[in-house]
Amino acid sequence: MKNAIVLLSGGLDSATTLAIAVAQGFNVSALSFDYGQRHAREVAAAAALAKHYNVARHINQKIDLAAFGGSALTDTSIAVPKDAPASDAIPITYVPARNTIFLSFALAFAEVSQAFDIFIGVNAIDYSGYPDCRPAFIEAFELLANLATKAGVERQGRYTIHAPLIKLTKAEIITQGLKLKVPYELTHSCYDPTPAGKSCGHCDSCQLRLAGFKAAGATDPITYA
Amino acid sequence: MKNAIVLLSGGLDSATTLAIAVAQGFNVSALSFDYGQRHAREVAAAAALAKHYNVARHINQKIDLAAFGGSALTDTSIAVPKDAPASDAIPITYVPARNTIFLSFALAFAEVSQAFDIFIGVNAIDYSGYPDCRPAFIEAFELLANLATKAGVERQGRYTIHAPLIKLTKAEIITQGLKLKVPYELTHSCYDPTPAGKSCGHCDSCQLRLAGFKAAGATDPITYA
Repeated sequence: MKNAIVLLSGGLDSATTLAIAVAQGFNVSALSFDYGQRHAREVAAAAALAKHYNVARHINQKIDLAAFGGSALTDTSIAVPKDAPASDAIPITYVPARNTIFLSFALAFAEVSQAFDIFIGVNAIDYSGYPDCRPAFIEAFELLANLATKAGVERQGRYTIHAPLIKLTKAEIITQGLKLKVPYELTHSCYDPTPAGKSCGHCDSCQLRLAGFKAAGATDPITYA
Repeated sequence: MKNAIVLLSGGLDSATTLAIAVAQGFNVSALSFDYGQRHAREVAAAAALAKHYNVARHINQKIDLAAFGGSALTDTSIAVPKDAPASDAIPITYVPARNTIFLSFALAFAEVSQAFDIFIGVNAIDYSGYPDCRPAFIEAFELLANLATKAGVERQGRYTIHAPLIKLTKAEIITQGLKLKVPYELTHSCYDPTPAGKSCGHCDSCQLRLAGFKAAGATDPITYA
């Protein structure tokens, strides 16, 4: 059984990615981040998903992206847009270098776990504005991983970055997840939940999620404020 | 005046790198890490150097590489080798994916600082065993940086990773640093200092440092245990 690391945010996409890695027969460890995001509610969702899938190890890495600022997700001086119109511009919810940082930690975790497979639930359809959700970024990181590590340089294995959702629509992701019995009731997507942790139903992320379930002909099992 | 980010560990190499960036006319911000390393003494050295050079911003990012284990520098169950013989193998003091993680945070800091120049004091001569100290690694990260970020993709600038020490011997680094009046008395290199923070004089890092000063015809201003 080959080891793998799955980046697990606690959202719908990462939950589906975890289910895919498990279905492919990997012995999965999960890596989550508490990065000063507004929705710490995600951290609890990641823990519940890790427990559900009985992962080998689940590490929650605390990092302080808010120290740098520059994103609505980590900088309290920038408002999270509500009912924002679609746009080609890179969204204000983009967090500088976030996926580069996440994959770097996953690489460290992989190397000490004798894992050569890293799964990340990025998506280039819904998040076309995020530079670090595109195939070119994933390929560049894979190249880097094999140059950056002892295990890569000594050719103990070849690192592969799996991004199984990268070209799927949200409806396709949900359809695949439902087949794999992903417990979507444990996931959290909202950028701006209520103090009690309920999703707002209006932010970009909630809208994408709700539209995805609708297009998949399914019902979102979470409750909204 | 162009902005730049310098990775500042508090060691001799990063102090020299900071001095080089300043001498090149950059408006420098510094980024340090407290990563569960045994030598927290380094953190204090970084703060003293940042103050000496009056940097624009100095961020100290706390991360937990010890959570993963696998290195003598972060895992207390692995002993730091003393008076270790030279070897072609990758040393036990290698920390998995460390420079990838450090550069990823530097990239985030650069993007929010409108900086396109990142300085890192890696060295491929003394640390030939570390995969993430080689030119091929630096080049791969530079490629990644320009794909990973909003600023890179929108071509607001082109990221350059500067590794000015990469092909220098320790003696050449020290010679250059002394010309730039680097306050080496503020730096710290030892992997295994005494509880009071004094350098051991015997670990790989101390030996390299002492041999470097000797070869440069200079005296190391720090005191040893």
